[in-house]
This record gives sequence, C-alpha cells and structure tokens, in this order.
Amino acid sequence: MDGVILTPLKQIYHPKGDIFHAMKKSDSGFEGFGEAYFSTIHQNDIKGWKKHLQMTLNLVVVSGEIEFVIYNEATFFTAKLSHNNYQRLTVKSGLWVAFRGLGQHNMLLNLASLEHDPAEAVTINLDNIAYEW
Amino acid sequence: MDGVILTPLKQIYHPKGDIFHAMKKSDSGFEGFGEAYFSTIHQNDIKGWKKHLQMTLNLVVVSGEIEFVIYNEATFFTAKLSHNNYQRLTVKSGLWVAFRGLGQHNMLLNLASLEHDPAEAVTINLDNIAYEW
Repeated sequence: MDGVILTPLKQIYHPKGDIFHAMKKSDSGFEGFGEAYFSTIHQNDIKGWKKHLQMTLNLVVVSGEIEFVIYNEATFFTAKLSHNNYQRLTVKSGLWVAFRGLGQHNMLLNLASLEHDPAEAVTINLDNIAYEW
Repeated sequence: MDGVILTPLKQIYHPKGDIFHAMKKSDSGFEGFGEAYFSTIHQNDIKGWKKHLQMTLNLVVVSGEIEFVIYNEATFFTAKLSHNNYQRLTVKSGLWVAFRGLGQHNMLLNLASLEHDPAEAVTINLDNIAYEW
C-alpha cells in the first residue's frame, strides 16, 4: 500500500541477552524524530481507528503479537508483528490505523516523526470502517 | 553525577492498554536521534563496562528491572529502573556504564544520539572497575 513500509529488523544473539534493532536515522521510513512512546494493547482489544494528518509512525512490536490494519481508499493492508515476525511498520500520514492485541502481553514502540499533538490526528469509532476482525 | 540525568516519565492509563512515555525531542537530555535499539539482559548477568566517546545514551526500561551503574573519576552513580520506578536515564559520553538484570525478563530501550559505530566506544572487563555488585 502506498505510504506503508515493512522493514525486516535484525535480532542479534548475545549470551547475556539479545539485541533487537528498531531504527537508524539512515533507514528507509525515517522522517525525523519527534517522540518515542510505548503503547500496550490487551489481548483481543482493538485501538483505532486513528488517522494522523502530519505524523509518520514507525511501529516496532516489543513484546507479544499485534495485528495492524491500515485502511485507505477502500483498501486494507494488514500485518501480524512479533519477535517471530520482527519487522518495523512505517505508516505515513493520511492513512487510517487500528491494531489488536493477539498475545498475552502486547507492547509496541512508536518512533513518531512529531511530538504528540491531538490537533494533528483524527479518530473515529471502530465500526465506522468495515473490517472483519 | 555530571553528565547523568534521571527524568521521571509518564505512564498513562488506558482501558485497552496503558501508554508509557520514553522521550520527546524537546526533553532534557535529547541530543539528536541516531538509532533506537533494545537490549535484553538475563537475570543476574551484567553487561559492561562500556564507555562511549561521542554518543549520548537515553535508556528506558521496557520490562523487568535493571540496575545501572555509571562510573567516572572514582565516583559511582547507580539506579534501579523498572515500571515501578519509571524514569529515563541519560548518560552523556565519557562515562563508564554497566548494567545488571534484576527481574526475570529485562529489556531496555536505548535512544542513542548516534548510529552504532564500534570505533566510538571502548569496553573493558567487568573486574577492571571495582564495584561491589
């Protein structure tokens, strides 16, 4: 989907505890650093729909498994991300995003291109976009 | 200790899953974004000592509990961070850093001011700095 990038990320073995890459400033999808925060999502709960008007999201699943759904112009893009399918999901502005917790302890990191600003995002109820969860 | 900043971070309740702040670009301690990565550390294992010559670290404990020790000029600074003591630890370049896993599943996020470059860091064995772990 235009405006969506999935980038495989390295997981590096270390005998005292592994290293998991998230993003370098030279990576595809990086459009400046505004804010980093974690969001958790309980199993079977869904957060969404939200559309950012200016912010680019870079989403990395830290623990558990999360199903992401992106909607734009009658088209859906979906990905289930976890340490077993360890990829960064870049979502440019203008696309509707929702996500559901699949595991028991689900957490994502968002490396956002802008600081949080409620005026820059639009939210609608989940049933306003007909996706078969 | 000069070059070390501890900054309390917000944890925001959400019925579908809480939000945990990590860093905004306007925050104290932010010196540019180079790379974000996760490091895990097994219970009772210690990673260190490492000294960065140019990089500023911004460390946030994502899960478990981690004890950080910073050493400089015969002085130690120490902090045990977790979701129960949820603070960001900023470490400027030139200081020795080591950390130990205290919980069962310990993970930190480092928001580093530079991309990884082995030539920019020095490592020595743990017993080269006499800290009573």
